[in-house]
Amino acid sequence: MTVQRTQFLTLDQPLALACGRSLASQAIAYQTWGTLNAARDNAILIFHALSGDSHVSGVHEDGRSGWWDLMVGPGRAFDTERYFILCANVLGGCKGSTGPTSINPETGQAYGPDFPVITLEDMVHAQRPLLRHFGIERLHAVAGGSMGGMLTLAFTQLYPEMAERAIVMAASWTNHAQAIAWNKIGRRAIMDDPKWRGGRYPVDDPPRNGLALARMIGHVTYISEGAMDEKFGRRLQSREEESFTFGVDYAIESYLSHQGTSFPQRFDANSYLYITRAIDYFDFTGDTGCSLPAAFALTRARFRIFSYESDWLYSPARHEAMTQAALAAGRDAKHHRIVAPLGHDAFLVQEQPQGDLIREFLHND
Amino acid sequence: MTVQRTQFLTLDQPLALACGRSLASQAIAYQTWGTLNAARDNAILIFHALSGDSHVSGVHEDGRSGWWDLMVGPGRAFDTERYFILCANVLGGCKGSTGPTSINPETGQAYGPDFPVITLEDMVHAQRPLLRHFGIERLHAVAGGSMGGMLTLAFTQLYPEMAERAIVMAASWTNHAQAIAWNKIGRRAIMDDPKWRGGRYPVDDPPRNGLALARMIGHVTYISEGAMDEKFGRRLQSREEESFTFGVDYAIESYLSHQGTSFPQRFDANSYLYITRAIDYFDFTGDTGCSLPAAFALTRARFRIFSYESDWLYSPARHEAMTQAALAAGRDAKHHRIVAPLGHDAFLVQEQPQGDLIREFLHND
Repeated sequence: MTVQRTQFLTLDQPLALACGRSLASQAIAYQTWGTLNAARDNAILIFHALSGDSHVSGVHEDGRSGWWDLMVGPGRAFDTERYFILCANVLGGCKGSTGPTSINPETGQAYGPDFPVITLEDMVHAQRPLLRHFGIERLHAVAGGSMGGMLTLAFTQLYPEMAERAIVMAASWTNHAQAIAWNKIGRRAIMDDPKWRGGRYPVDDPPRNGLALARMIGHVTYISEGAMDEKFGRRLQSREEESFTFGVDYAIESYLSHQGTSFPQRFDANSYLYITRAIDYFDFTGDTGCSLPAAFALTRARFRIFSYESDWLYSPARHEAMTQAALAAGRDAKHHRIVAPLGHDAFLVQEQPQGDLIREFLHND
Repeated sequence: MTVQRTQFLTLDQPLALACGRSLASQAIAYQTWGTLNAARDNAILIFHALSGDSHVSGVHEDGRSGWWDLMVGPGRAFDTERYFILCANVLGGCKGSTGPTSINPETGQAYGPDFPVITLEDMVHAQRPLLRHFGIERLHAVAGGSMGGMLTLAFTQLYPEMAERAIVMAASWTNHAQAIAWNKIGRRAIMDDPKWRGGRYPVDDPPRNGLALARMIGHVTYISEGAMDEKFGRRLQSREEESFTFGVDYAIESYLSHQGTSFPQRFDANSYLYITRAIDYFDFTGDTGCSLPAAFALTRARFRIFSYESDWLYSPARHEAMTQAALAAGRDAKHHRIVAPLGHDAFLVQEQPQGDLIREFLHND
C-alpha cells in the first residue's frame, strides 16, 4: 500500500476575495490518488467538509486513515484505478492551506483575526490553480458532502465549463436560519472563551473550551435524534445510578465530552470561525434574486443530489427543492433519497446504496 | 384588574430528596387565581417550564404580564372564574422558592453549588405542602408544558389519588439522548465560563456569557426549522450586505444574541444547572423496568396529551407512545396533535385549538 503525502502548491499571484481584500500569496495543501490519463479527462475534484482536510483516503505518512476510505480507493465508488482524484484543504483551513494560522507576509506573524473573512466561492477560486497545475481543463466530476456539497455547487456555477458531473451530498444551496444559529452559537462560544484573546492566542494555549463547545453543538446536528436514542439512549456511562452531580452520568455526555475535548487537538479555533462564517454566507442563488432555477441555469454540470432521510441539518426536502430547480433550469439532475438512520453524518460513514449510485453515475451514466 | 402578588409558604419540616440528602427548611413562592370553593374540589395546579415562574397570568405588582395569559384567566381555557388555579416556582428555581440562590441555614451564605442535586420528583414533593396549606385533597387537574408536562406526569404517579385530570403538553416521559446532549452543552457553557467560579459567583457578576450560550442553544430547540425560515430566513439585520466580520449580519443572529444577553438578567446560572439536571434525570418509568404502561398503571388520572407537529424537542411520536401506554394501562387518555408551525414553544404562545380542547376536558369531559 502506498503511503499518502500532503503536497503543496505555492502561488505568488494575488487572490482577490469577495470581501474586497486579496491575499498576496497562498499555499494549497492537497493530495492525489490514481493517475491522470493522457487526455487529462479522468480527474475528479473532491471537496471536504467543515472539519475535514485533503486526506481523503489511504494511510497518510502521519499514520492517519482517510476520512472517506469507504468511498475512495481502488475498486471503490470513486475508483482510484480509473480516476485521478484530487482533494485540497480549503482556504481558511488549518491543514496546510493558507488560513488564519499561516504567516501573514506583511507582519511575519500568524494572520489570526487579521485573516480576511472569506466565502465558499473564495475557497473554490483558491483551488483553480491546482487544476491549472495539472493541466486539467475539464473535470470528470466534482463531489462533496455537507460544506463539500456546497463547494461543489459553487464550483459548477463559478466554472460551469469545467465540471461535467456534480455530486452534491447532505448539503443545501444556502445556509438556512437554524443552521446559521448553530454556527453563530459555536462562534460565540469560541469568542467568549477568554483564551481566544481577540483571536491572538498562542498555538499551545488556544481557546479549547470554546472550540469544544462549538464542536459538541455541531456534533449533535450531525446525528439524528433516533440514532442517538439507538446508540446512547439513557444508558449510564460507568455507574449503576445517577451521581447527583454535574459530572458525566450518561453515555451521551461522555461521548460529547470526548468529541469536544479531542477536537481542539486537531483543529484551529480561528479556522472554525472563518469556515463557519463562509458557510453562513453561502447562497447559491447569489445575484439571481433568490431564484434557484436561475442559479442552476448558470451551471452546465449533470447533477446527482444525495440526501439522507434522517439528516435534520440539511433535510431531504431541501435536496428535493434543489433537484426540482436544476430540472426546471434544464439540467440533468436526479435526487437520491438514501435510507440512513444515522443522520447527516451518513454521507461520511455509510457505503451503500450511495456507493453503487455514484459508481454508476461516474462510469456509465 | 387585580394585581398579582407572589406569596410565600415557609416550611420547617425537612424535605427528603432523591439524592439522599434533605433540606431542613424551604420556602415555596406561589400565586393563586380564582376562588377555592367550599368543597375544595375546583383547584388546578399548573407547573411551569424551565425558565418560568409562578406568575402565570395577570399583571404582577412588578409590572410583568403572565407567561400563560393566553390560557389562564377569566373566561379562558383555564377559567379563573370557575377554578382555583395555583402555580408555584419549582424547588431549585430562582423566582422565590428555595434554590441555589437561597441562604443555606448551615452557613448563612447562599447555597450556590452546595445546593443538593434535585429531581423533578423532588420538585413535586416540595409542592405537596402548598396543597395541604389550602386543604386541597384532590385536584380537579394538574397541567403543564415542557418541563411542566413532565412534572405533571410525575405528580400523577407520586400522588395518584390527588389528580383527577392531567394535561401534559409538549413533554415526554423521560429526557432522550439528544435532549440530554443539549442540556449538557448548556451546563458546560456555564461551568466553563470563568465567572462561574465553581458556582460561587457574586449576584452582580454572574457567568453571563455561559448562561447566554445555554439559553441560545435552548432557544433554537424551542422553535422549528420552518418557523425560523419563515420568521428570519437569511434576512440581514440592519445592512444591505454581509459585513465580512464575525459580528451580527443576519436577523437570526441578532435575535439569538438578544435572547442570550437578556436571559441572565432574569435567571440564575446555578438554577439553570440544577433544573436542567433534574430534567435529564426524569424517567417516568422509574422502577418499572422501563415499562411505560407499567408506569401509567401507577397513576389514576385521566390524561389529555398535547403534542405540536413541528416540536422537534419532544416529538409528536413520543406523545403518541405515552398515550398508547396510558391506554394499555387502562387509563382514560387522548392524544391531541396540534397543528403548530412554530414548534415546541407553541404550547406557550398558541391559543387554539388547544384552548377549546382544554376547556372541554376541564368543564364537561
